[in-house]
Amino acid sequence: MSTTINAAWHLASRPAGLPTAANFAWRETTLPELADGQVQVRNIWLSVDPTNRIWMNDADSYLPKLELGEVMRGIGIGRVEASRDAALQPGDIVQGMLGWQRYCVGPAKALTRLPPIPLPLSAHFGLLGHIGLTAYFGLTDVAGAKAGETLVVSAAAGAVGSLAVQIGKNLGMRVVAIAGGAEKCRWLRDELGADAVIDYKVEDVAAGLQRTCPEGVDVDFENVGGRTLDAVLGNLKLGARIALCGLISQYNATAPEPGPSNLAHLLMQRGRMQGFIVLDYLDRAQEAAEKLIAWHLAGRMKYRLDISDGLASAPAALGKLFTGANTGKVLVKVGEE
Amino acid sequence: MSTTINAAWHLASRPAGLPTAANFAWRETTLPELADGQVQVRNIWLSVDPTNRIWMNDADSYLPKLELGEVMRGIGIGRVEASRDAALQPGDIVQGMLGWQRYCVGPAKALTRLPPIPLPLSAHFGLLGHIGLTAYFGLTDVAGAKAGETLVVSAAAGAVGSLAVQIGKNLGMRVVAIAGGAEKCRWLRDELGADAVIDYKVEDVAAGLQRTCPEGVDVDFENVGGRTLDAVLGNLKLGARIALCGLISQYNATAPEPGPSNLAHLLMQRGRMQGFIVLDYLDRAQEAAEKLIAWHLAGRMKYRLDISDGLASAPAALGKLFTGANTGKVLVKVGEE
Repeated sequence: MSTTINAAWHLASRPAGLPTAANFAWRETTLPELADGQVQVRNIWLSVDPTNRIWMNDADSYLPKLELGEVMRGIGIGRVEASRDAALQPGDIVQGMLGWQRYCVGPAKALTRLPPIPLPLSAHFGLLGHIGLTAYFGLTDVAGAKAGETLVVSAAAGAVGSLAVQIGKNLGMRVVAIAGGAEKCRWLRDELGADAVIDYKVEDVAAGLQRTCPEGVDVDFENVGGRTLDAVLGNLKLGARIALCGLISQYNATAPEPGPSNLAHLLMQRGRMQGFIVLDYLDRAQEAAEKLIAWHLAGRMKYRLDISDGLASAPAALGKLFTGANTGKVLVKVGEE
Repeated sequence: MSTTINAAWHLASRPAGLPTAANFAWRETTLPELADGQVQVRNIWLSVDPTNRIWMNDADSYLPKLELGEVMRGIGIGRVEASRDAALQPGDIVQGMLGWQRYCVGPAKALTRLPPIPLPLSAHFGLLGHIGLTAYFGLTDVAGAKAGETLVVSAAAGAVGSLAVQIGKNLGMRVVAIAGGAEKCRWLRDELGADAVIDYKVEDVAAGLQRTCPEGVDVDFENVGGRTLDAVLGNLKLGARIALCGLISQYNATAPEPGPSNLAHLLMQRGRMQGFIVLDYLDRAQEAAEKLIAWHLAGRMKYRLDISDGLASAPAALGKLFTGANTGKVLVKVGEE
């Protein structure tokens, strides 16, 4: 019987501030025999998201916290190599919490078999999956976005943000994108169709919102929090909705970050701020995927991948998210398709 | 033709911090002749509310700002003495923005004729009117409160808060009241039926919430903001709703107050924070009034008035709201019923 060597990044310590390579330990082990109900998956793509940082904290969040020494939690796509569960067969492409490792051995029922799509496998992470669902349902369901309204998207050049910008355009909204740097802003305006952009590296966001949204903001797709959210709160239109998707400005904070001081505007403008987590929309994944694929095939929905090659690069790929070094979806290519 | 002397408090300066008597100037003038469409009202009751403080700022809010020199804006109840509008007759009891003055001369269409109720006139301010509507629709419509849920009410001994506590009980909720001082807490628990109380003067609110809501908060009727709101955010149950009614902790701030640093919990718990203003519910006033009167007559809804005698006392009455000196609804009795 052959043995297979697995390699994995384990959580070695919890970050104080930005996560670094020192928070992870590389370990190689022999894959265990499969038990009943288990499958062995060879990992292909690993999704790297801001939420990975949340999972590293010593606190439960919307998922239980990760214990020190465990394989780093991560959403991945892989191919089933062996199965002791009737639900999955060798060759099946699956998605789930495959972890930061080359192979995953675990219960078949924790994995989802991916349907074939007319796009590369990586589109499951760049356009569909949790990223696409977050952008799509955040705008449509959580914010109740309507044609003709003014939408603001923060971290707009990020994986979720760049889809939210384009979904907004496809829904007939006027879209203002907030991002850092001339190249990101150019991409958002010239290639993704944003009606206006605010480069937070050269313009105060509050001033930028007054410039680009003189009549106020109807919908905010909020990925950043902190001063960005404060600026948006100060420019809400009556009945505005804030879809609270992420607060990346504070994930690495080592002390409590002050929240938005402009909360009074939420009251005065009868605004609604609604937190949401994509997990609540998994049962409606097909609905979003059909829309997103159709828009993409019609040339009305682009996505950009920021690919790091090899599992070894995962810690560095995570770091990129918090310095604004990425444009589009950060992926680690763990193995060949 | 006789002349009538009016007396009024005018906005003389804008407060930096707490409002004081020095912000108001007392002036006596002769009432003008009525023009077509106008009425002359003798003011009886003046409602003093935290929102008065908002109106003194040099900024528009949900209403246009008051200019310096204008009669202080205030909601009042009075009796029509003379009318040049077919809609109102002498003797009618009306409510509206009668101002901090003995008489109001203005357009009849800006006033609402009050229906007869089986209670004293002051109940329009203590139980019904904008106070009752705020508490009732804030809980039912904005927060979607449900029987069996845990409700937290801040500034619970205030006019709106004390009604919100009792409405929560009448809706079948478990109610935790936050107030300052043993006597207020005793009143809330022993007379208004709160299931638990947190005296913020002797107990940290976050600790108090952990003690009284070990399973978390479903609904927060928020009157305070600041650290109180932060503590509630840190104890939200999944799918919690915050009805953002007031932020009295920051109305007198002279610099921007940091907002809640626990906003991440709103995201993780898929919470909703919704601002609202009672003006949006005026067309449903009858619906709330019927419920509130019925509960009151059945002995299940009490209200307490904190009456200051005479128009001269209005500035001091306003000051009470921000030092926690009042229990229940602050009213100024301007004249006899």
